[in-house]
Amino acid sequence: MRTLEVCLSPELIHQHQLEGKIVVVVDIFRATSCIVTGLANEVVAIKPVAEVEECKKLGEQGYLTAGERGGIKVPEFDMGNSPFEYQSENVKGKKVAISTTNGSQAIVKSKEADDIIIGAFLNLEAISEYTLQSKKNAVIHCAGWKGTVNLEDTLFAGALIDECAEEMKPQGDSALLAHQLYIGNHENLFGLAKQSGHAERLVGFGIEKDLEFCMTVDEYSVVPRLVNGELVGS
Amino acid sequence: MRTLEVCLSPELIHQHQLEGKIVVVVDIFRATSCIVTGLANEVVAIKPVAEVEECKKLGEQGYLTAGERGGIKVPEFDMGNSPFEYQSENVKGKKVAISTTNGSQAIVKSKEADDIIIGAFLNLEAISEYTLQSKKNAVIHCAGWKGTVNLEDTLFAGALIDECAEEMKPQGDSALLAHQLYIGNHENLFGLAKQSGHAERLVGFGIEKDLEFCMTVDEYSVVPRLVNGELVGS
Repeated sequence: MRTLEVCLSPELIHQHQLEGKIVVVVDIFRATSCIVTGLANEVVAIKPVAEVEECKKLGEQGYLTAGERGGIKVPEFDMGNSPFEYQSENVKGKKVAISTTNGSQAIVKSKEADDIIIGAFLNLEAISEYTLQSKKNAVIHCAGWKGTVNLEDTLFAGALIDECAEEMKPQGDSALLAHQLYIGNHENLFGLAKQSGHAERLVGFGIEKDLEFCMTVDEYSVVPRLVNGELVGS
Repeated sequence: MRTLEVCLSPELIHQHQLEGKIVVVVDIFRATSCIVTGLANEVVAIKPVAEVEECKKLGEQGYLTAGERGGIKVPEFDMGNSPFEYQSENVKGKKVAISTTNGSQAIVKSKEADDIIIGAFLNLEAISEYTLQSKKNAVIHCAGWKGTVNLEDTLFAGALIDECAEEMKPQGDSALLAHQLYIGNHENLFGLAKQSGHAERLVGFGIEKDLEFCMTVDEYSVVPRLVNGELVGS
């Protein structure tokens, strides 16, 4: 039976062998929810970069610039990190360069993988179908918060394990833990996710609607994939 | 309200500020279960050391030597890492030097704390009472398995959070996660713990009885504390 591992924080990614595997990067609040929303709404491509400066340089080359630091929009950027900004007419047909505190870093740290895809509750079923059809083992890479483990990404990992359970086995205790978290809370996903430290910080910025949207299941069917350094829909 | 944090692996301990706090070190399978059992059974003191060689030198000074590598007794040592060995008449009135794969390392990495105590299901209530009476904030330091997160230590962290819930608040998402794991599985602690990768390895060595004993709640009331580099009962 194929295996599904969970890496609870980018600081633990060295414990996982990524070669030959699919890595599903997840940063529910909010980078990967934004990426999924953008590519489902006719954004052409999204380029994840680690540094603000690199993002600004891409802005000079015609990309829209997007992202946050510590949950707050970088002032010089065109967009912040809200999924609703990615539904706007202004982004259709455009390329976006995105730099965020956690999500971009997790993508960069997944580079040894055979295939990097972007997961969120918004495209949960599409991600599970893609993963099952790939015939490869998979690692769910939770972006967390500044290196710490977080509740909402772990909850997503558990949900994906649950979706894939008939054909893929959770491998390692982090995967079992994530699955148990989901089993115990699958009827109250938003209720639990709202308790996370990250959610509390963001609610402090007045964006509870963002959080609720990010916890919506199966809103989109796009599977963002990293191809030549850019995320494109598939 | 005072706070209880959870560090899911020694590799993440730098994310926690330990100064001024109590650290509860936990390595359910089996180091901290052994330490609790030993000090409850008239062992005078247990000295945790990182390296096998250091342990052997203490053997020359009259300590009994104990411990494992990869779950298997170090051949030159007097004892392995089974709690039943610590109930023997041979250990009464003696000092033991212990070196294990995970537990000893977690103790060493907790040294910035004000107070280091040793937790296991075997002394859960005693640990919660000690922690509550201390008036300090606390960090539960899960020893894990070779740097990875494990199920049984996380489950203990959740149990201790639950015991302390009226006076101490889980702080950070790892603490919320551990608590949720416990809430969802408190009626089936051994059933879940048996699924852990570490338990599977140990069952392969034919020591399922050790595991069952390690999951026994409140067998002892001793609280092992680190005093001048040695663990003593209190």
